[in-house]
Parts: sequence; C-alpha cells; structure tokens
Amino acid sequence: MADTTETTPGWLDVDDLESARAQMPVLYVNAVPVRVDEGGEVTHIGLLLRMGTDGTVSRTLVSGRVLYHERVRDALVRHLEKDLGPVALPRIPASLQPFTVAEYFPTMGITPYHDPRQHAVALAYVVPVAGDCRPRQDALDLVWFTPEEAASPLVQQEMEGGQGALLKQALAHTSCLP
Amino acid sequence: MADTTETTPGWLDVDDLESARAQMPVLYVNAVPVRVDEGGEVTHIGLLLRMGTDGTVSRTLVSGRVLYHERVRDALVRHLEKDLGPVALPRIPASLQPFTVAEYFPTMGITPYHDPRQHAVALAYVVPVAGDCRPRQDALDLVWFTPEEAASPLVQQEMEGGQGALLKQALAHTSCLP
Amino acid sequence: MADTTETTPGWLDVDDLESARAQMPVLYVNAVPVRVDEGGEVTHIGLLLRMGTDGTVSRTLVSGRVLYHERVRDALVRHLEKDLGPVALPRIPASLQPFTVAEYFPTMGITPYHDPRQHAVALAYVVPVAGDCRPRQDALDLVWFTPEEAASPLVQQEMEGGQGALLKQALAHTSCLP
Amino acid sequence: MADTTETTPGWLDVDDLESARAQMPVLYVNAVPVRVDEGGEVTHIGLLLRMGTDGTVSRTLVSGRVLYHERVRDALVRHLEKDLGPVALPRIPASLQPFTVAEYFPTMGITPYHDPRQHAVALAYVVPVAGDCRPRQDALDLVWFTPEEAASPLVQQEMEGGQGALLKQALAHTSCLP
Repeated sequence: MADTTETTPGWLDVDDLESARAQMPVLYVNAVPVRVDEGGEVTHIGLLLRMGTDGTVSRTLVSGRVLYHERVRDALVRHLEKDLGPVALPRIPASLQPFTVAEYFPTMGITPYHDPRQHAVALAYVVPVAGDCRPRQDALDLVWFTPEEAASPLVQQEMEGGQGALLKQALAHTSCLP
Repeated sequence: MADTTETTPGWLDVDDLESARAQMPVLYVNAVPVRVDEGGEVTHIGLLLRMGTDGTVSRTLVSGRVLYHERVRDALVRHLEKDLGPVALPRIPASLQPFTVAEYFPTMGITPYHDPRQHAVALAYVVPVAGDCRPRQDALDLVWFTPEEAASPLVQQEMEGGQGALLKQALAHTSCLP
Repeated sequence: MADTTETTPGWLDVDDLESARAQMPVLYVNAVPVRVDEGGEVTHIGLLLRMGTDGTVSRTLVSGRVLYHERVRDALVRHLEKDLGPVALPRIPASLQPFTVAEYFPTMGITPYHDPRQHAVALAYVVPVAGDCRPRQDALDLVWFTPEEAASPLVQQEMEGGQGALLKQALAHTSCLP
Repeated sequence: MADTTETTPGWLDVDDLESARAQMPVLYVNAVPVRVDEGGEVTHIGLLLRMGTDGTVSRTLVSGRVLYHERVRDALVRHLEKDLGPVALPRIPASLQPFTVAEYFPTMGITPYHDPRQHAVALAYVVPVAGDCRPRQDALDLVWFTPEEAASPLVQQEMEGGQGALLKQALAHTSCLP
C-alpha cells in the first residue's frame, strides 16, 4: 500500500517506524472513492494513478496509516484530503463498520493482500465524494471508472498488493460487481 | 408504522391492500435521518412528530412500503422526500446492506417491534440529510435531537411500535448510543 | 428463484399467491450454505442441483418465502431444513443484518437479479452448516465447491436469475472471491 | 482492556511493547461470547470476571492484541481459547466484517472507549460458543447473563473502559438490546 512518510513532529521518525513495522501490525484505512447517483447507486469508482520508485505505473485506492491518538474518522478525512485535494467533499460513513478488513502480509499467499514492507491491517470503506478531485502528492492523476471497467482485467492488473481484490469486494458490497 | 395509502393508479386499492396484509409480510423501508459532521459522526437525529387518529401525538422514523416493481433505493428516496420535503438532500447509502431488519408483528412480544395492522418487515438504514427539511403530509413537524436526547426515556416513550428500540439500534450502529 | 408452493392450511392458496405476487414485492430469504474451518474461513460452498420443469438442470442457493407471521430466523431454519435435510445443523447468524439485499424483478436489467414470476426481495445470509446434508424435495443433489470453483464461469453459467452474482457477493463478503 | 503480556519468543518484549504502544495505535480484537438458540437468537452473553492489580473486580469481554504476522481470525481463536478454555468451540464468523470498531484512547472523552495504557483499536465481533467454557489465566470466572441482565446498570457499572457501551452495541447488533 502506498503511503507517504508522516513528518509531523512527535510522530515516529523513519527509523522508529521501520522498527515498529517489523514488530506489530500497522493499522491502516483504505477508502474506495465513488461517485453515486441520487439514489445512492455507485456510477463510478475513482482510482489514483501512481508512479513507483522503479518507474512502473499502478492504480491504487486511497490508503494510509492511522496515527497515534488519531480517530479512524480523522484518518479517513486526512488521507482523502491528501489524495483527492481539499474540495473533494468526501462523505465519511456515519457508521465505522467497515465493509471488510484487508490484511496485508509481508509474506504472499496468506491472504489475497500483500505489502512487502510490513504487516498492515486496513479498515476498508466505500466513500462517496461529491466535489472536485485534484490529486496531490505523489499521485499523477485520478481517473473515474465505471464498475464494469473497474472489474476488468485491464484495470485489475494495474493494481498491486491485492487492491484489485479489495476493489472487487467494494463493488460486490455495493451490488455493482459485474 | 405510519404510512399513507398509496393512490397511484395500478397499485393495490385499499381493500386489496388490507387483504394482502393479512396474508403476507409487507416489505418496508425504515430510515433514520441524521445530521453528520465533516468526519461523518452523527450529531443529531431527526424525528417526525405525528398526530394519530385518536389525537395522541407520537414521534416516528421515516417509514413506508416498498411498492411492486420499485427498487429499495427508490422507495427510500420517495419516502424521504414524502416525509422531509423535496430539498432535504438525503444521502442514500451506497450499499443496500441495512444495519438491521426490523420485524413488526401484529402480535406483541414476538420481536421488539409491533404493528397492529400487519406483519411488516423493514430494511433499516441510517440516512444523512444535508439539506433543508420541511415535513409534509401528515407530519406536524421534524425535530432534531442529540444522540443523548434521542435515547432518553422522554423521547423513547413518545415512539410507538418499537421504533424507540430501532432508534437505539441506529445509535449503537453509529457508535453514539449513550 | 426456486421455491415450492406452501401448502400449510391457512396460508395463501396458489391463486391468491399469484394475485399477491402481481401486486406486492414478496419477501424471501436467500442462504449460501458454506463449510468453514476452525477459524471461520470458508472452505466450500454448497449448491443445490435442480431440474427445471423443462428438463434443464441448474444450480441454486437455498431460497424461499417468508410466510405471514413467520420470523426471518424461522424462515431461514425452515428453508435450510427443507433443502438440506434435518441434520444439516445450520448455524443461523446471531445478527439479522444480511450481507446484502437481492432484488429480483420480473423485468430483466433493473438489477442483476431476475425472477420471471414475481418481484421478490431476498435478505441474503451466509450460513455455515456443520452437519450432514441430504437434499430433499425437488433438489437432485447438493454439491460442495471450493471458492475458486464456485466463482468459475462453468458454475456461474449453471446459475439462473442472477444467483451467480449473489454467490460472488457472498464470496466477496467472506473475503474468498478469487 | 485487559490482556496479558505475550511471551512467545521473537515477539515484542515488555519494554519494546511499551515503547511501540506510545507511538502507534495497537490492533486488538474484542469478542462478545454468546449462547444462541437453534434459530441463531442470542439467549445469553458471557462475561469474564477479573480481579485488577488493585483488588477491584470487573467484568470484561474477550480481548487481546493481534500479533505481528497473525491473521485476525487466528487472533480471535487464540484469545477465545486463552480466555474460555480449549473446549469452548467458538464459531468464528465467516466474514471478517466486524459489527463495529472500538477506539480506546488513553485520553478520556474522545470516544466512549478508554485505555489508560495505550491507543488501541479493536475489531469487535459477536462469537457464538457452543462448548464448555472454563476460564483460564487471570479470569476468575465466566458468567452467562441474559440480554436484559447484560444491559442492566448493575452489570454495566462493573465493566470498564467503555466495554459496557461495546456490549450494548453488540446487543443492538443482534436485536436484543432491551
């Protein structure tokens, strides 16, 4: 899962973070940004286009750590704003019940999810966004796909670490898995 | 549960509805209108104030039948608009997974829910509303309560048919049951 | 969805049922029988093999109506026993929250689900069964599939009315959609 | 939340755990053990009776950390076995979707949950147990309560850190909050 090093003073520095990541599961939030119609039905799914350090391009969900003393709700707001910009107007769910919990293991094959850097456990939410999305930081672009496109092999193979499987779970949860 | 007779041509007339209600469970939607803050947390719950045929006053959730050939999403939109007016801007959930299923029996004591007229089964949703609510039809008013007020004995005793219990389930689902 | 005519005295007779089905959505339960390991993970999904009146063979989930004055829990128990036999030992969920609501329309294309006879709305549950399954009534057999097999085109094309899509939603809900 | 120091070689030692707890949210599972009837309805809730280091007695849910490289399912099995003994026969849910996420903050008042030692985030599940429960380790006893008793002020005031609120959420989720 992509995330950027948190540089807020007082948080873990990079070395400490590396150390803690080797010893405990790290709590994440994963958000699937969607456009919905008036009846709440999902019409499009937003995927970030990112360039890896090795120059490969991949598509990702909104993802990031929950910090010490941060509420899950606040982590969702922070990462959505970080990735989609300040006027995306995300509608954070009224209930914290995630549609699933995605377990990213450093070892492949234990779950559908994989993160070579760490054992991360992500609370996964579908988040309708009503405003204008302007990807920031390391994302090159945000592209909206129909459910059919999002579930297609073409898009699925551009997603890493099992996020394609998580995207399909989100489509299934909103009854729009083709 | 309060609802009004559907008078759209082609639907059940009053006699047929009475007859069907005596023979099959009737599918309903129940919606708990809420105000949420930027992080999605529930700040207020909206309850309708209604006057019964016997002059008693009660508070109710948004509630109504799902019609033949009507999607659950469309029934939610229709009943929210009927009860809260055309500019309430309800945010129908992206997933149809209800937070619970409320079974109203004509006989008391089988479940916490009771409807003397019929066996009704309601899919229950928490629905954030962002706009201006103007109650219509037979509702006298819409009053916004804090979670503490909504769970208080004073408000609970003004709710009938077990809707107070359903409201508490909604508060629990959104982690704001005091 | 396959179900058998209910012949309990006092319920709807066949004509009345036809009439009611033309006027109101009919409440159903859909159950996906699964085998789970000690950690609750789904290892196999049970599908019924049925022969249609036209001699075609199809695979189905456990499915049936909720009767007047019957609890959803009791309808689940009844249909699981009807389809899997008396010693299947189904573990009905402690919560009535379904993983989704499947809307079967007589018209195709409105939702992924289709039932030419009626507008049926099914509460869908994953139900672990621990005992010995002996299909009864009109089912020819019960076959256990791995998640990979259940999601395969071969099995999916043997399912009708969108139940293949519902099965995939159940696999996604239990994090075993391949 | 009560848990015991993990002493498996290779895991965090006590000092490291203290250090990590001061810097990252710690992932927990919380399980509400229940007895259910044939239809899945909750009849009793099991609470552990524990004695604190200061001699005070409290009632708790099953609770504990998710370890590095441990699946949530395996953490649930491990903590249920640790607290209820080897023949409790817990039925771990087929879906990892928790009924809620409980955020325990070291500072009081941010959420209903509080843990003076750490920021812990717990995935909360209702877990039917079918076997014989024999509390082990630091638990004095396991007592089964009816839903009415579990929600009563007497029992609620014996629960610490907001676990009484979490128990009420579990009762609401299973439609047995009185």
